[in-house]
Amino acid sequence: MNKSQLIDAIRHQKSFLSIGLDPDLDKLPEGISKDAKGVLAFCKKIIEHTAPYCCSYKLNTAFFEVLGPEGMHVFNELVQYIPNSHFVIADAKRGDIGNTSRMYAQTFFETYHCDGLTVSPYMGSDSLKPFLEFKDKYTIVLGLTSNEGAQDFELQNLENQTKVYQYVMKTVASWGTPQNVMFVIGATQETLQKEIRSHYPEHFFLVPGVGAQGGSLEATCQNMLTKDFGILIASSRDILYADSGPEFYLKSAEKAKAISQNMWQLYSELF
Amino acid sequence: MNKSQLIDAIRHQKSFLSIGLDPDLDKLPEGISKDAKGVLAFCKKIIEHTAPYCCSYKLNTAFFEVLGPEGMHVFNELVQYIPNSHFVIADAKRGDIGNTSRMYAQTFFETYHCDGLTVSPYMGSDSLKPFLEFKDKYTIVLGLTSNEGAQDFELQNLENQTKVYQYVMKTVASWGTPQNVMFVIGATQETLQKEIRSHYPEHFFLVPGVGAQGGSLEATCQNMLTKDFGILIASSRDILYADSGPEFYLKSAEKAKAISQNMWQLYSELF
Repeated sequence: MNKSQLIDAIRHQKSFLSIGLDPDLDKLPEGISKDAKGVLAFCKKIIEHTAPYCCSYKLNTAFFEVLGPEGMHVFNELVQYIPNSHFVIADAKRGDIGNTSRMYAQTFFETYHCDGLTVSPYMGSDSLKPFLEFKDKYTIVLGLTSNEGAQDFELQNLENQTKVYQYVMKTVASWGTPQNVMFVIGATQETLQKEIRSHYPEHFFLVPGVGAQGGSLEATCQNMLTKDFGILIASSRDILYADSGPEFYLKSAEKAKAISQNMWQLYSELF
Repeated sequence: MNKSQLIDAIRHQKSFLSIGLDPDLDKLPEGISKDAKGVLAFCKKIIEHTAPYCCSYKLNTAFFEVLGPEGMHVFNELVQYIPNSHFVIADAKRGDIGNTSRMYAQTFFETYHCDGLTVSPYMGSDSLKPFLEFKDKYTIVLGLTSNEGAQDFELQNLENQTKVYQYVMKTVASWGTPQNVMFVIGATQETLQKEIRSHYPEHFFLVPGVGAQGGSLEATCQNMLTKDFGILIASSRDILYADSGPEFYLKSAEKAKAISQNMWQLYSELF
């Protein structure tokens, strides 16, 4: 899926919500077995009932890998199960020397047919460029993340007074285009979002941290929405575990619908 | 495996070589099928014939993941096939927000029973600390890597004149101990290795980049070896693809033996 197809998908769905599939065995609802089979059944139900209220799913690879090899069968089945109309992100935070990054790119873009992949920039150019060579795929690079640890390195000052994350974003942006690079910008980084958007008016940002992590949907939209949307709001735990009963998916759908209506309202007010 | 067991393993094997298993379908020798089954057969032969000449194997997850779900079955089978006497590293470069990093730690330390796991520090404290909670396991953090891209971010100057990688290492070292933290230091970073060792006299370093990437075994040993060894030299392509004939494993064993004898000689001269 390329940028204009993503924008069309958002417009069609009236939603720039990316539902995070982070299926935690300890949190699965009643009647769902705490194993790979249960995870598959759970996620399928979530997808089936929430698809009308989002434009994207973000599968967190850790929660599938922890199940052992069986987990990647589930991952694969889910990627295929998600409607083609939706943008599929492998939230994998990969990145290694060039020949290895090429393998990761093949893994997620070709073997599993995902549309986007999150990657970590620490190792620099040759660790990122192999991802950028894939047409109509998005390399989603960690910029300023939503977690507390963002303070430790991302927010340190370089000698030229730019912060590490600013320098990373500026450098990475120069290796690609708004058509193949997105950045991860945490919803919890409210005070910095507006300035970030001003430097990158054309880029999409993947924004986790709304909900369980404490970020504000309203502030994020006000700070970073553009006419072409330019953001995907990722929400996971709030939607997945909205209810623990046997009809959990109804509450999940309700929650996804409420978030989408809320974001669409905010968009309508702004543009 | 803990630090003293790792030191014992090195002493017993007379080798601080960690053989990298990065099985590339395009480079598999004659008579090996270019699929998951072939990768399994190839790696088993390599392990069987090289085990006497190394103390560790480093499995690069990308090369297994690219095979699809089947690849992780192969990964699992190989981890079990490696003798218990050898230190098993999952070279996975993982790292995410706390609850996700905990899943990655479980994946590689519990589901797959690896001894060490490479992780990327970009996201800071809560992305690394979950790994450090596992007893007798090593969190192997990217410090100064062997690739060209190391220049882009790792070698940038912070405002206090320390470099990004120096600050990362200093900060991460304070979260753990030489018993549970190793650092990745590239063999290609010859001019900086001695100074790095001087700051971390007790830590083990995982050192890739000898061979195909151009790093020098001799310089690395002179710069960073300690009486308790303190380094694992990772070598992959030079050993795996030493020969493309049907008895490829004989040349691989020969190559691993030569590297080990060379490193043991260097150690003997120094201590």
